[in-house]
Amino acid sequence: MVKNGKDRKVAPRVPKGFRDYPPEEEIARQILIEKTRTVFERYGYLPLQTASLEFAEALLGPHYNADNLKELFGFTGPEDADIALRYEFTLSLARYVAGNPHLSLPFRRYQYGNVWRVDKPGPGRFREFMQFDFDIVGTASMLADAEIIAVMVSTLDYLGIKNCVVRYSNRKLINGLAAFAGISPERARDVFRVIDKLEKQGREAVILELGPGRTDRSGDKIPGLHLTDRQISMLTEFLDLALSKGDDILTDVEKLLGHLEVSNEGIKELCQIREFLDQMNVPSEKAKIDVTIVRGLGYYTGPVYETTFLDLPDYGSVFSGGRYDNLVGRFSNRSIPATGSSFGVDRMLAALIALKAIELKESTAEVLVTTMDKTRMKDYIEIVGNIRDAGINAELFVGDTKNINKQLKYADRIGIPVAVIAGSDEFEGGMITVKDLRLGREKSKEVADRDEWLKAEEIQVTIKRVDLLDYLAKILNKD
Amino acid sequence: MVKNGKDRKVAPRVPKGFRDYPPEEEIARQILIEKTRTVFERYGYLPLQTASLEFAEALLGPHYNADNLKELFGFTGPEDADIALRYEFTLSLARYVAGNPHLSLPFRRYQYGNVWRVDKPGPGRFREFMQFDFDIVGTASMLADAEIIAVMVSTLDYLGIKNCVVRYSNRKLINGLAAFAGISPERARDVFRVIDKLEKQGREAVILELGPGRTDRSGDKIPGLHLTDRQISMLTEFLDLALSKGDDILTDVEKLLGHLEVSNEGIKELCQIREFLDQMNVPSEKAKIDVTIVRGLGYYTGPVYETTFLDLPDYGSVFSGGRYDNLVGRFSNRSIPATGSSFGVDRMLAALIALKAIELKESTAEVLVTTMDKTRMKDYIEIVGNIRDAGINAELFVGDTKNINKQLKYADRIGIPVAVIAGSDEFEGGMITVKDLRLGREKSKEVADRDEWLKAEEIQVTIKRVDLLDYLAKILNKD
Repeated sequence: MVKNGKDRKVAPRVPKGFRDYPPEEEIARQILIEKTRTVFERYGYLPLQTASLEFAEALLGPHYNADNLKELFGFTGPEDADIALRYEFTLSLARYVAGNPHLSLPFRRYQYGNVWRVDKPGPGRFREFMQFDFDIVGTASMLADAEIIAVMVSTLDYLGIKNCVVRYSNRKLINGLAAFAGISPERARDVFRVIDKLEKQGREAVILELGPGRTDRSGDKIPGLHLTDRQISMLTEFLDLALSKGDDILTDVEKLLGHLEVSNEGIKELCQIREFLDQMNVPSEKAKIDVTIVRGLGYYTGPVYETTFLDLPDYGSVFSGGRYDNLVGRFSNRSIPATGSSFGVDRMLAALIALKAIELKESTAEVLVTTMDKTRMKDYIEIVGNIRDAGINAELFVGDTKNINKQLKYADRIGIPVAVIAGSDEFEGGMITVKDLRLGREKSKEVADRDEWLKAEEIQVTIKRVDLLDYLAKILNKD
Repeated sequence: MVKNGKDRKVAPRVPKGFRDYPPEEEIARQILIEKTRTVFERYGYLPLQTASLEFAEALLGPHYNADNLKELFGFTGPEDADIALRYEFTLSLARYVAGNPHLSLPFRRYQYGNVWRVDKPGPGRFREFMQFDFDIVGTASMLADAEIIAVMVSTLDYLGIKNCVVRYSNRKLINGLAAFAGISPERARDVFRVIDKLEKQGREAVILELGPGRTDRSGDKIPGLHLTDRQISMLTEFLDLALSKGDDILTDVEKLLGHLEVSNEGIKELCQIREFLDQMNVPSEKAKIDVTIVRGLGYYTGPVYETTFLDLPDYGSVFSGGRYDNLVGRFSNRSIPATGSSFGVDRMLAALIALKAIELKESTAEVLVTTMDKTRMKDYIEIVGNIRDAGINAELFVGDTKNINKQLKYADRIGIPVAVIAGSDEFEGGMITVKDLRLGREKSKEVADRDEWLKAEEIQVTIKRVDLLDYLAKILNKD
């Protein structure tokens, strides 16, 4: 039979670069989000939510064109307005602050939610992903920057990432370096991109890239910047300081660059941050000055922050940010300084999973009440109601099968820890059977081998029905 | 001075129908979401998150055209794919289930997040809004429908809405009514739309609209459906049964429509639901059969649910849903029955606010540590750190002013309950001053009049610094 158009099935797929989050991942994301919120609110940060769609000019500036719009999920919407899905939160925050002139400053806010980018999708790279930002708007004090770093350290600690370090530097210092070496502002970006590779590629590779270029391990030719020998030797002096990583690095940098006003200002700001961090009891091994940090974003004006997970050396910086004192100026004549940091929720979650700092669970239900005898439904409903009233998440089996093994298999597959079973014999004797499926999982890691264990008496006890709630509370560690 | 293009400021506004959520509202939304999640998880529902953008054919079916796309936030995206922002979650759930054939069924899931609709914006009507859904997929049992109603009742109760009722009916019953009165399926929709007005407009208005039409209070002419007298009298018989609202309504409806197979099936299903709800101890005044309920959505096939807030008579149904056994069929040849319900987060929040069931707070911080003497920053930082370590959300004033009254005003404006103050005198004597700003707010509701109260000694105590944490815990009701 040829199907006509009306019967045609729609393929159950999502657009390229998009994905669904099944319960297992979504449960873990929610735990990550709640823990992060707890830390941010402990420091007085407040939740803000902004519109997902913004006017194109808010995201791209007043001089965008149709091609720029295509670099975002942008389109002409209702009322013929050029609009686009946000690709980050900072611009929306600047717009919000400019549009709310009576906002009490300093304004500490956090925001989490999806952002959208038309990047080429790849493994772990999606076009829709969740971002978590926090910022302080309305103060130029380095106390704010120190607080941002302290909150980053606290958050990573609370999430269970023990072996990590927040590294920070200052854009002003690096701008001073460019002036020192006689590099024009137009070329400075390329130079900083190369210096940024110091940690990963090493001193020699960086020096070659500043000069004639080099050939990497896979034989690819990496072109050089062809700086003069004098420029390279001035930059090398700085690189060697940076690599020394001594506690007195700022003194050394000051000797080298302190005569330039801009880098001197940057050094002073870094000193202040370090002092505030000491007062905040942030251990110096958790927050380190690293003068090679640059950060890609163009709008940073002062301190910048990055994170290294020492147990995941190939992971880039997951949690980073900086001070951006001019961004509100896109929307307002008021000059409003701001600083903040953000992480990608999915990348942070992947790190937590890799570090075994989070346990993946497929279910939030703690008990499945099986329903093998449909004439006893009234009893099953009463049992599941009592369990819920005791504060335990419980699910009643509502599927069409009476087969107890199929019901236990369902509980096992979605990771419910405990199943409750009662048939006529139990009901008449005032008893009830509790199966601890976790024991079955311990006995046999392979799902295919677990059918026998699900039936095994070894993982079950039969108790008096009146004792059920106490027994469940005990084995589920409820207070 | 004429500004050139480069200096032009971007207006700090959002597209029509969009909005930001300032902390006051976002804090309340998060409380609402967390409470709802608690109830849903108590019943075993699991979180799922789906892509925000879907292929146009997933949302609109395979035969959509460019105009349909404009009714959504739809556009041609990367790879020239027709895509659109989701306008609800049920289609995405159906797509997810069809695309994951190994999913354990029954599948209980909840989802919350934004949906987008190109409706005409108006007061309280936005183009981006948050929706909260929960559904059971994979069972045709009326136990599932009864559970949906029970969860709706539990959720409303847990959110603090005491005076409300979930009303339910069955599409099959109303289809039987159409057959009984000899109304063609094409006209049935219009007839049900009129019958749906029974509660609000009353019997006479409905009968006139089924016949010649009527003139409403404001003088507008409402056209009639011009049914025959015989049809109207058959429908009137049903309306009078519906209005009687007796406990035996189903017996009466059975007498009238029970000879028709489709309505008979509907009546049997309603009887089963009522029986399950009794077993679940859902009080009958919280969940009532109301045979006039129709629900607008085309895809419902069986039981349908609505909510009435008795203290907000002009509010429509905020929390509603129904059974939709054919929707997965858009994406798959497997027939997978499903049922569920949803509410709009913003409309629910507005109801909670109107019913005074939620308290709006502008801040989650409980203490502001003021910083009047910048040379004592080390002490302030230590104090705020200790307060946080005690589990209290605390903010350090990082603004540029040293003026203590300005700092207190800031705390007052954003609703921080308590401020901590220390100057040289206090530090030297080992003392600290705590101002309970809530007392100031009680003394003077008007913000303008509060300046004096902020300074008043009446709302402050000076205690030993070592007693600070205990004192804060006490006045903030911490355990």
